[in-house]
Amino acid sequence: MSKITPLNAIEMQCLRQSFGLSVEQVATLTKCTKEQVIAWESAQDTAPMQAQKALLDIDDIIEMQVLNTTDGIEELFKKEPKRHLAFVVYPTQALYTQYNPEFLSSLPLTELYNTAAWRIKKECKIVLEVEVTLIALDAEAYKAYRADNNMSESRESRAKWAATQL
Amino acid sequence: MSKITPLNAIEMQCLRQSFGLSVEQVATLTKCTKEQVIAWESAQDTAPMQAQKALLDIDDIIEMQVLNTTDGIEELFKKEPKRHLAFVVYPTQALYTQYNPEFLSSLPLTELYNTAAWRIKKECKIVLEVEVTLIALDAEAYKAYRADNNMSESRESRAKWAATQL
Repeated sequence: MSKITPLNAIEMQCLRQSFGLSVEQVATLTKCTKEQVIAWESAQDTAPMQAQKALLDIDDIIEMQVLNTTDGIEELFKKEPKRHLAFVVYPTQALYTQYNPEFLSSLPLTELYNTAAWRIKKECKIVLEVEVTLIALDAEAYKAYRADNNMSESRESRAKWAATQL
Repeated sequence: MSKITPLNAIEMQCLRQSFGLSVEQVATLTKCTKEQVIAWESAQDTAPMQAQKALLDIDDIIEMQVLNTTDGIEELFKKEPKRHLAFVVYPTQALYTQYNPEFLSSLPLTELYNTAAWRIKKECKIVLEVEVTLIALDAEAYKAYRADNNMSESRESRAKWAATQL
């Protein structure tokens, strides 16, 4: 949805809800006030084009993330067929910030990453007939697993831990 | 997602948020209490399979609605090409119940219909390169339009009114 056609009140509300975000979170993301978000969602004002673009860009990033990850999983499965896969997500913003900082600039909130993850799960089921389970990172259990297996912290280690949770 | 694999806490939360629903609304939909929904989303309990199935069935209905409507629009455009289309949505539950009762049994809440409508908008943009604008029904303006044009209430009349709002 990169070409910008102005969104009306109900569309701005749908867009926010499709991300699973609160009014406050959209205010922060778009550098607007909570009152502004309420105003544009109730058709008392039009959302600034900059705010619309910020949110539509996030939607594009999520779609891209879904496509790329699904393609990656399809590629992986050509070598190593599996029908069940674990995908790590982060239950709090603190864990997301600590463990997944490479996404902070494009998808700053853990809810946005979760939105992408949920769509990946659906896409893998429909397109690849692969079951993806979202595994919320349990920091303590993950640390214990690394200690037991003498592993350093990395995306791969998280994926290996998550696979033990299936 | 019709085959049921049990969903965990974060997945149940993602599913609810993908619909744009509150904890209270999911409680009503699944005939559970708000406390139960909070418990299964925080991994203190597992969501009853009946509740999981109720929500996954709604997800299936939305996906089907998106596919069918997008196919319908594609078919329509073979005869009458347009690049911009209005799609009526209902800003309140009262208007949804009054004007769109044929969906009440499958998608009982206006938020669910809006979720489908938003996905239809995205799908039409990506797949058909057709711009869909969601038009919130304005009951007073719609009544005035019907009076002016001597039209009875029908889905077609609503669509015609909505087209004047583009």
